[in-house]
Amino acid sequence: MTHPSVIRPRNHAVYTPAKMGKATLFESARLLVGLNGFEPGQEHALHAHAGQDKAYLVVEGSGQFLLEGRELPMQAGDLLVAPEGVPHGVRNTGNSRLLVLAVLAPGPAHG
Amino acid sequence: MTHPSVIRPRNHAVYTPAKMGKATLFESARLLVGLNGFEPGQEHALHAHAGQDKAYLVVEGSGQFLLEGRELPMQAGDLLVAPEGVPHGVRNTGNSRLLVLAVLAPGPAHG
Repeated sequence: MTHPSVIRPRNHAVYTPAKMGKATLFESARLLVGLNGFEPGQEHALHAHAGQDKAYLVVEGSGQFLLEGRELPMQAGDLLVAPEGVPHGVRNTGNSRLLVLAVLAPGPAHG
Repeated sequence: MTHPSVIRPRNHAVYTPAKMGKATLFESARLLVGLNGFEPGQEHALHAHAGQDKAYLVVEGSGQFLLEGRELPMQAGDLLVAPEGVPHGVRNTGNSRLLVLAVLAPGPAHG
């Protein structure tokens, strides 16, 4: 993908029958911008990133943000930030596909 | 703002008559997540960030992404990544408010 250019995230969504689908839209040492695609019933279990902040933006569909001991209903347009070390996850509890933009800083290849 | 929690970006939008309005949703040394609000006709002129990658996600409205020598039409749902050092900007060419989520990594307080 060439940057900068105008990207329509849903055109790049990946869904797989077995588990959450992943697509990378941009990656540097500073920033990863990706997509997580969830078929109904799929989830990304609670996990944490040491030294990396994560931001989720719901592109389409609805479901839950998973936090330690909490499940927060979410829908298209909603944003959640999980600062470094804070456990987080996503579950598609709806009847349609759930697409979430995921931002991670720094990127996985940092220092 | 407490993190993590579910945030509806448009509930935090700031618009000002004189120029682009700014709101900060999250800030760390690694990541800044903010909102840029544009009344019709307002713009954020071409600028660049040395050592920081920028991602824009259009929340509502329509307009143009400004790049060096180019103006790219954009609308709600569109994403653009300006890698570090690449000039970029935003112009509201529509008749309604334009709200853009802006992500900067690392954050302004890094290093």
